[in-house]
Amino acid sequence: MKPMMEEVTMKACGLIVEYNPYHNGHHYHFQQATHITGAECTIAVMSGNFLQRGEPAIVDKFTRAKMAIQQGIDLVIELPYFYAVQHSELFANGAVKILNSLQVDSLCFGSEHGEIDDFNTLYHFITEHQQAYDLFLTDALNQGHSYPKANDIAFSKIGGKNLSIDFAKPNNILGYQYVKNMYDLNTTITPYTIKRIKNNYHDREIKDPIASATSIRNQLLSAHTNRNELNDALPSITRKALQTYKERHGSWHYWEAYFPLLKYRVLTMRKNEFSNIHGIKEGLENRIINTAKKAESFSDWMELLKTKRYTWTSLQRVFTHILTNTYSSEIESLVTKEKPAAIRILAMSNNGQNYLSARKKEIDVKWYTSSKDPYPYQTFEDRIDHAYYSILPLTSQKHLTKQAYQKPIFKTP
Amino acid sequence: MKPMMEEVTMKACGLIVEYNPYHNGHHYHFQQATHITGAECTIAVMSGNFLQRGEPAIVDKFTRAKMAIQQGIDLVIELPYFYAVQHSELFANGAVKILNSLQVDSLCFGSEHGEIDDFNTLYHFITEHQQAYDLFLTDALNQGHSYPKANDIAFSKIGGKNLSIDFAKPNNILGYQYVKNMYDLNTTITPYTIKRIKNNYHDREIKDPIASATSIRNQLLSAHTNRNELNDALPSITRKALQTYKERHGSWHYWEAYFPLLKYRVLTMRKNEFSNIHGIKEGLENRIINTAKKAESFSDWMELLKTKRYTWTSLQRVFTHILTNTYSSEIESLVTKEKPAAIRILAMSNNGQNYLSARKKEIDVKWYTSSKDPYPYQTFEDRIDHAYYSILPLTSQKHLTKQAYQKPIFKTP
Repeated sequence: MKPMMEEVTMKACGLIVEYNPYHNGHHYHFQQATHITGAECTIAVMSGNFLQRGEPAIVDKFTRAKMAIQQGIDLVIELPYFYAVQHSELFANGAVKILNSLQVDSLCFGSEHGEIDDFNTLYHFITEHQQAYDLFLTDALNQGHSYPKANDIAFSKIGGKNLSIDFAKPNNILGYQYVKNMYDLNTTITPYTIKRIKNNYHDREIKDPIASATSIRNQLLSAHTNRNELNDALPSITRKALQTYKERHGSWHYWEAYFPLLKYRVLTMRKNEFSNIHGIKEGLENRIINTAKKAESFSDWMELLKTKRYTWTSLQRVFTHILTNTYSSEIESLVTKEKPAAIRILAMSNNGQNYLSARKKEIDVKWYTSSKDPYPYQTFEDRIDHAYYSILPLTSQKHLTKQAYQKPIFKTP
Repeated sequence: MKPMMEEVTMKACGLIVEYNPYHNGHHYHFQQATHITGAECTIAVMSGNFLQRGEPAIVDKFTRAKMAIQQGIDLVIELPYFYAVQHSELFANGAVKILNSLQVDSLCFGSEHGEIDDFNTLYHFITEHQQAYDLFLTDALNQGHSYPKANDIAFSKIGGKNLSIDFAKPNNILGYQYVKNMYDLNTTITPYTIKRIKNNYHDREIKDPIASATSIRNQLLSAHTNRNELNDALPSITRKALQTYKERHGSWHYWEAYFPLLKYRVLTMRKNEFSNIHGIKEGLENRIINTAKKAESFSDWMELLKTKRYTWTSLQRVFTHILTNTYSSEIESLVTKEKPAAIRILAMSNNGQNYLSARKKEIDVKWYTSSKDPYPYQTFEDRIDHAYYSILPLTSQKHLTKQAYQKPIFKTP
């Protein structure tokens, strides 16, 4: 029974990803993570159809999950919308809870800093000064600063600048949130970090994997796509999957494509309905209503709305919640759970399936592969997915929303 | 000062119309009405962008109002959405209240029956049997009959079939409602009716003006338009206006064009939100939600929904209210007024303007021509209009919603 023994002791590493789309930087991260953690199974928790920064993913979650499996990831789990389209704290909290339920041994994240010990130090430092930190944070928010900026100010005021980590860098902040949640949730997950690479490993143009995902999308959506640059940045699997999606459904997903729908929605909402929407506060609805008629495009609208307090990202999240008709009350009722009520597997390899079988008894959460089983968040996720697919031709909408229910899990051959 | 004297005694005739679009049957009605009432000014109360049968008008209210003025109508007043997209009773009630406020001397409607004395008899007959009538009506509704069918049953049960008027004919029913409201509101308006013509006056194919408006629209929207038939049915002013609208904005308005928006809206509404929508009751929302994913087109959706109780028309009205996000509570608060809070002039001729000046003191309602004045229903109407224009390109949306505020009244040269 040697294989059984091997399965039981199979070590798993968790990744927290968006893969929008999967590029060489992601592949480097995956390979390094496997290498330094010694994992035999890699589990990626991935945002679904809408992303942390409040954007539609360029192709849907099923397509992105399949790409990841084809590249060697073993399990792709959906980070539900109510964790994904959120501040870094809740995003991290949801992802770590899922990985913890799945009994991963390690979690490996990319960061600008790249030294895990310093993240541990950072966590203890902030925890020691938590009360002062929270006061400075509230103070900075009251002064009209954005949430990320206010965090940086509070960090600075408690003396954090003496630490070697730059807390203004986005992936250091996310990394801190991952580490914090691993400690706060009393997990036994070992944290690892990989320094984000610059100007190497085939990524000539990709200086920062997050920035590069943006530049890749800009390239893809541009009228003057530089094919060579894309070929350098994207694995052939990604290039093929993106091309197939566009050929089959006529379009990728990006905010400008949703602009007419969003505008229709905003202009037919009554004023008191805005207060239900997650993220709307302090009269933001008035600014949204007043600029709706003027805006000539989505980016134009964003420019009209942007202030010191409302960052591009936080406004995009609000627009995502308007588009999907997501209420604060709903989000609050879903995210407060101690552990996930259920998890949704978007795709898995044979190896991933073996991992689940082997750890079945330890995994304290029910997992769903197809929706023949009544997934507890199904009604909620249906609404989100319908909003996401609504820019596609009706035949594609029908095909793609149906697959969510009936398509078997993608497995490597 | 002879001209002043003439203005003061100018006689006005009211018409209740939709002009979707203005065709030869409408023109015949307008000419006959002027002739038999001896009116020197004709005032048409016209449904706005959405019509009584729960449909978007083929072109917008401004374009339709302008056509009517060019054909000789003197004043086109908007019948607000909350009266227009309603049962015949409320439709008639709103229109008669507006005409009464404007001090018209007569009201002339088309009917299948064509004899005004019989409408007076009909009114007195039903009023005498009102209690029994209402009981039979409720009874028929409880048995699952549609509203029009239930009315016909109640009418039959009180012995109405002995009268010479066929109460099952749609324009006889509407005519009865007009007459009823003229009496119930204690107006001094004299009712007239014109028998709807068949097979004459250039209307070879237009056997029934209502039916013909439908067949004209079918012809216009068909891939195989019969140009000759349209040229026979439509004045050149209408043909030109329709063509210009399509050239400028890329599309006319018809339900199928709204299907993607409507589907998006239904699939992103949460279940409890449906109960707010005007006309949704008895679990109709469940039927709408359950059929939304299956429907491949608007007409397909309608076929899936239609029952004995829910007629095509009543379902279309519900879909209109969903598209425009119109609540029952809102409609109820607006339609209960004794007289209109304000009226909106969509277009007028010089003669129409003279009429208003001459009768200024007698007219007990404030009228609005442009929205620089804060029209009391402006927020409401804006929402409706934005929903209506939302299928057009963004540049057209911007242009057309702006005209609602700034465009001066159309006047004949």
